[in-house]
Amino acid sequence: MTEKKITTTKEPSHQSELRQDIVTGDWVVIATGRAKRPDAFVSAERVPAREEFDPFEHPEESGQEKDVLIYRREDGDWSLRVIPNKYPAFSRGKPVKELSEGPYFGMTGVGYHEIVITRDARRSLPLLETWQVAEVLDAFQDRYLALMNRKSVNYIQVIHNHGKEAGASLSHPHSQLMAVPVISPYITLELDGAERYYKGNKTKVYTTIAEYESEHQVRVVYENDHFIAFCPYASRGAFEIMILGKRPNPYFERITDEEKFACAEVLQKSLQALYAGLNDPAYNFFIHSAPCDGREYPHYQWHIEILPHTATWGGFELSTGIEISTIEPEVAAEYLRSKLHS
Amino acid sequence: MTEKKITTTKEPSHQSELRQDIVTGDWVVIATGRAKRPDAFVSAERVPAREEFDPFEHPEESGQEKDVLIYRREDGDWSLRVIPNKYPAFSRGKPVKELSEGPYFGMTGVGYHEIVITRDARRSLPLLETWQVAEVLDAFQDRYLALMNRKSVNYIQVIHNHGKEAGASLSHPHSQLMAVPVISPYITLELDGAERYYKGNKTKVYTTIAEYESEHQVRVVYENDHFIAFCPYASRGAFEIMILGKRPNPYFERITDEEKFACAEVLQKSLQALYAGLNDPAYNFFIHSAPCDGREYPHYQWHIEILPHTATWGGFELSTGIEISTIEPEVAAEYLRSKLHS
Repeated sequence: MTEKKITTTKEPSHQSELRQDIVTGDWVVIATGRAKRPDAFVSAERVPAREEFDPFEHPEESGQEKDVLIYRREDGDWSLRVIPNKYPAFSRGKPVKELSEGPYFGMTGVGYHEIVITRDARRSLPLLETWQVAEVLDAFQDRYLALMNRKSVNYIQVIHNHGKEAGASLSHPHSQLMAVPVISPYITLELDGAERYYKGNKTKVYTTIAEYESEHQVRVVYENDHFIAFCPYASRGAFEIMILGKRPNPYFERITDEEKFACAEVLQKSLQALYAGLNDPAYNFFIHSAPCDGREYPHYQWHIEILPHTATWGGFELSTGIEISTIEPEVAAEYLRSKLHS
Repeated sequence: MTEKKITTTKEPSHQSELRQDIVTGDWVVIATGRAKRPDAFVSAERVPAREEFDPFEHPEESGQEKDVLIYRREDGDWSLRVIPNKYPAFSRGKPVKELSEGPYFGMTGVGYHEIVITRDARRSLPLLETWQVAEVLDAFQDRYLALMNRKSVNYIQVIHNHGKEAGASLSHPHSQLMAVPVISPYITLELDGAERYYKGNKTKVYTTIAEYESEHQVRVVYENDHFIAFCPYASRGAFEIMILGKRPNPYFERITDEEKFACAEVLQKSLQALYAGLNDPAYNFFIHSAPCDGREYPHYQWHIEILPHTATWGGFELSTGIEISTIEPEVAAEYLRSKLHS
């Protein structure tokens, strides 16, 4: 990667901007009239939660189900394990049953809900070694491949919640994988948008984004040969980061080993920039990948989205689906870059 | 309204359900495997925020802009006023300007952002008289009519945030009205869904819902001659309430005086049930109405959605748009009804 000189030319203004997501067509508001300086988003010092009991320290002794995957270190101790969620949102085994009522349509919530646990209860992803982050991606891929062809699995969602404000109910670092029968509305929006863009422009929209961001650098947080992390033009929240591969590939499960390590590096740098810049904020990250429903999605591109929890969504966001962000992604990216170089 | 005997026949089960929103086609999960009893959602006792200063007590003395609407009581004091937001997400005056960059599309955030303030700093809507709630609806309608034909206004969103967790930055009860140039994605989903349903069924989907819920009563919270409040079949969160008119009408601004008072009663009863049942929880409510973009939306129906803040959305909700609720709407409605009769 070549280091480029970056100057942020944007002057703060009091006119807010409406920006359209190039893929989905959705709108966000960059409310610079309410704009804050980047360090106004720094998290308050957190009182560590006093947990009486960590069920992920010795899952086998705490009523958890048996591992579906375990990686071991050379000394025999485990370094990563995947277990079925004890309180699954989707449950295994039974075939999907229709549960319609009057004019409404429903079905049983059949699927898989698994937890990916890393060994160290106190060190979250930005604090691990890069090979350990790559191991987490390894586990995602392993489980993805194991579940994608199962009956009634049409879509697999990988998520990671860090911090209580981001929905993490336990502080021991863990990710979740849900394999479900329905294709989620947000993925459908992206699939449709990628298709529409290709029809209109004869180029792939995610390739256009990656190339434009890499060339201009203004919103880039970190970049290597295979992946680019940047604050999206139409960020849905302050300090949102998107990680996009440079090789067109709709399917996360087809990531190569070389790419996996490069992706782990970019993911980790992104999380480290948030950790350093916002004082270990709560965040969610998740993988969006093409469905595993047997169809092809040639114009899509799998990617990672990182959403730090920097604001509370109010009625406007919940009622419209238009998010209001109070910092320009150009300013956010510059701030995050500075934290990686200091 | 005739009182009907209601029995909830659903037994708690450990199989979660996927339920589809009949209008939008979106999915929610009713995760009964993680189910809680209704009283598990009761809010913790709240420490009242110590605010040094209430800018809405005497808006004219605290640097707020001049009222755009004021209702007075017989004694001359004001009972409700509407002022422009001091920190608007959308700003007035200038014409919309394109702000595109490279492959991306954007524009200036032109519009109106107003605050509707009720007199009493401590009494929120469930604690007011019904005529005072009707006055709030009056103000929404007045401002709606005043702004709907302005240049660059294509959609008007009315919202109310109550409580810090729901995004309310000030405790003095207030609502907000945003008049914006773009039609929000959630409204578009509903408009498209209503059109699709009409094409497929030759009936209006919101009429179908209102009639079905009124007939079955299982999810009804409160009902009068003009409006029905119920927990939707595909609730996006615990204790969500939808208020639907019985007369087909896409346009909130065309509500009659008689309907307005009936709507105020149903809105207030719904908020009172939440107040009593969940100990004054934080909530958002908002009005969804057809756009004011000059087109007709004959199969749509304006309505109110109330979303109590009962859970933190994690990565799954944020990445998929599929919300997980941990109580069945049938159980939530029964609990809320019981709070109105006790």
